[in-house]
Amino acid sequence: MKGHMNYTLLCDFYELTMGNGYFKTGMGEQVCYFDVFFRNVPDGGGFAIAAGLEQVIDYIENLNFDEDDIAYLRSKNVFAEEFLDYLKTFRFTGDIWAVPEGTPIFPGEPILTVRAPAIEAQFIETFILLTLNHQSLIATKTNRIVRAADGRPVSEFGSRRAQGPDAAVLGARASYIAGCAGTACTIADQIYGSPAGGTMAHSWVQMFPDEYTAFKTYCELYPHAATLLVDTYNVLKSGVPNAIKVFQEVLLPQGITDCAIRLDSGDLTYLSRKARKMLDAAGLTDCKIVASNSLDEYIIRDLLLQGAKIDSFGVGERLITSKSEPVFGGVYKLAAVEDKDGNIIPKIKISENAAKITNPHFKKVFRLFERESGKAIGDLICLHDEVIDESKPLELFHPEETWKRKTISNFTVEPLLTPIFQGGKKVYQSPPIDEIRAYCKAQIDRQWDEVKRFENPHTYYVDLSQKLWDIKQSLLKGQGK
Amino acid sequence: MKGHMNYTLLCDFYELTMGNGYFKTGMGEQVCYFDVFFRNVPDGGGFAIAAGLEQVIDYIENLNFDEDDIAYLRSKNVFAEEFLDYLKTFRFTGDIWAVPEGTPIFPGEPILTVRAPAIEAQFIETFILLTLNHQSLIATKTNRIVRAADGRPVSEFGSRRAQGPDAAVLGARASYIAGCAGTACTIADQIYGSPAGGTMAHSWVQMFPDEYTAFKTYCELYPHAATLLVDTYNVLKSGVPNAIKVFQEVLLPQGITDCAIRLDSGDLTYLSRKARKMLDAAGLTDCKIVASNSLDEYIIRDLLLQGAKIDSFGVGERLITSKSEPVFGGVYKLAAVEDKDGNIIPKIKISENAAKITNPHFKKVFRLFERESGKAIGDLICLHDEVIDESKPLELFHPEETWKRKTISNFTVEPLLTPIFQGGKKVYQSPPIDEIRAYCKAQIDRQWDEVKRFENPHTYYVDLSQKLWDIKQSLLKGQGK
Repeated sequence: MKGHMNYTLLCDFYELTMGNGYFKTGMGEQVCYFDVFFRNVPDGGGFAIAAGLEQVIDYIENLNFDEDDIAYLRSKNVFAEEFLDYLKTFRFTGDIWAVPEGTPIFPGEPILTVRAPAIEAQFIETFILLTLNHQSLIATKTNRIVRAADGRPVSEFGSRRAQGPDAAVLGARASYIAGCAGTACTIADQIYGSPAGGTMAHSWVQMFPDEYTAFKTYCELYPHAATLLVDTYNVLKSGVPNAIKVFQEVLLPQGITDCAIRLDSGDLTYLSRKARKMLDAAGLTDCKIVASNSLDEYIIRDLLLQGAKIDSFGVGERLITSKSEPVFGGVYKLAAVEDKDGNIIPKIKISENAAKITNPHFKKVFRLFERESGKAIGDLICLHDEVIDESKPLELFHPEETWKRKTISNFTVEPLLTPIFQGGKKVYQSPPIDEIRAYCKAQIDRQWDEVKRFENPHTYYVDLSQKLWDIKQSLLKGQGK
Repeated sequence: MKGHMNYTLLCDFYELTMGNGYFKTGMGEQVCYFDVFFRNVPDGGGFAIAAGLEQVIDYIENLNFDEDDIAYLRSKNVFAEEFLDYLKTFRFTGDIWAVPEGTPIFPGEPILTVRAPAIEAQFIETFILLTLNHQSLIATKTNRIVRAADGRPVSEFGSRRAQGPDAAVLGARASYIAGCAGTACTIADQIYGSPAGGTMAHSWVQMFPDEYTAFKTYCELYPHAATLLVDTYNVLKSGVPNAIKVFQEVLLPQGITDCAIRLDSGDLTYLSRKARKMLDAAGLTDCKIVASNSLDEYIIRDLLLQGAKIDSFGVGERLITSKSEPVFGGVYKLAAVEDKDGNIIPKIKISENAAKITNPHFKKVFRLFERESGKAIGDLICLHDEVIDESKPLELFHPEETWKRKTISNFTVEPLLTPIFQGGKKVYQSPPIDEIRAYCKAQIDRQWDEVKRFENPHTYYVDLSQKLWDIKQSLLKGQGK
């Protein structure tokens, strides 16, 4: 965002009570490993898209308890003065690995791993989760909408219905990464480079004595790429005829043919087909038709199936809030601790629900690709020091239904997690947003169409290495102390 | 938020293209009236709760295009240099009226009205909408959850699933206004005064050799109001017995009886009833039971109907995103303009859908109350200069089904809209948040129970005065130029 915000205290209070507890019991320096992962893809989709890492990095680098923060904490009467002293010079000194923004991600695999002293590792939980959860949610939803539009540009129009200023601006950022062509949100262009555009509201049309004058004035002001909103009164009887008249009077004599009309209500299939015929009959074959009004991936898919003549889409509230599924359920779970000698002790969180049992230990994730097609086969979660030899066949097995096995060969391997911080020092530079966007598109192209289906997608394989699986089983057997 | 953000360019780009257009055509100074209103109560409820005005006021007061903003706009190559010069000293010079935060509000009535020169009035659309939409959404949802809890405290726990940092912090603010007892979000306490609290995560329990040691350490650190999370391993076999043991060993000898356990998974009715019996049998009758885990108003209502022994609730993602209905559909519509002589020319936006037709003109809203019960009868939208005489009977009629009429007497009248800005000057001071919260509760108490039902609530009357109705009809007849 523009300006400087101190988000340090954007933490759950329990992170501070636990921190004070670790501090006072001498456990504050114990090295812990936490994983961020999620359990379900929103909307029943086949994959999600990671986003928000750049804001996590900014947050980590700017962690700083200022005097007001310390005074506020002191006023709560629960923290030791020595702990408050410690917080005065608090900064993150640990390591972070994460999946680059724009990467397709799948349930159960670490998308970010923190290795740090207990107080630090616990403290950063809330901000990391909220940032990755929010932007991954919007990126995932956007990409569904963009895929439904099948090559037609989709613009993000939702600021006014976003859940607060950050949701508008960071949501526009995430939507651009995931394939939107641009946004209506001006500041998102200024800060993040998602191209901002927009032309007129109904109020513009209402401000003039009549629609024709409103359109004519607009085209005279903005002869290039003028988009006229044609539904203030009546689309087919008034809006489109007035737009045609103005395009013919103002633009064609200047040799300008790039123009558009926007439909924002009514039956978009019917109106777009009728409007297309009227525009074509008037010789305005280059005039584009833009549609908006409570669109999402299902409505866009249906419009195109029905033969709607729409060239681009503006999508608002259903994108910027991911209305059909407004929560991305990323969690932050302890996976291991180190003993005094630096040995890694794996930790597990048990649940009666098998899907809620965590994967213990310090891990890494490999993505496996078919050498021939270049398409992704699946992901393999391994211990941090395992390697995969591409030259040898590799046996994979389902982590619950272990009789389901297959052996792959002729594959390539890519690690998913990249070092972001080492010893508190940033070792990663976020790419420019257009690079993230291109990377996102390229990575999605490496997924099979079966994974991209809106309904009943193929369940992508996320398997455990034999070593990791063995450790998990032994911890499960020794559970419940 | 903490720190200073320049939100000036958090606008839809079309507000600037229109502004430039008004500027260049000499219409920039034409005085306009815009209303904010909404069409549907989220979740099919009987009323919504207004929130977010304080942030709207901050935004209006801080509007300011800095050099970077001007340079950015210039780079778009669509704005006249004279317009950019004008923006350099841009500030809001108009009038704003709004309903105070915490007021129950109903579909169709203005909750905020702007009177300002066209460029200014149009420019502030996006930020006003996003702020009122977001906070009113969360306040409305929260109040449903708080009502379901039937007097038991509800804490807001959702930061990690919020749609960005502002959604976490401003959402916590809105939830406190609407009745939450507090929040887990530390910075929301620091900035807005919603009391922050929280004790431990599962990771605390996992960090110790065993659950008993984790609990004992915690109670020794925080003997007062210690809340132990009892579901890391097994609630009834391990969590509750260990909690009881620790309470008896650490707290009771000190004479401390205020303690609690938290259930965060499983069958909350069954577990809470079992846990209550175990706690009572151990003499820990003062020990409270806190429940969390994907709660909302329906689950809380069902838990209580089933006899769950829960003393307070922590509610996360379903509150902070209003998951079941994550969009509050407030709109910003032109209602009138002034001609050169200062005469108000009403404007209307037509739609084939009767519910989408706007109410024209500069208006005010009265809330009518039964004198005897003090309960609200309904709201009456009038022209700005109408008065209601409480001493005379008043005939109300349904604005569409006009044969539905009733005459009321023995009523009192209160105006809903309060002056916030006059001639660009702030004339209103936002009350302290605890006052807003108390006002909200008092105003909801003035609504009939029938309006507060979760399903099929009574449709509260929002009627038009005869004068306003007549003007609307005459505009409808003359529509569609």
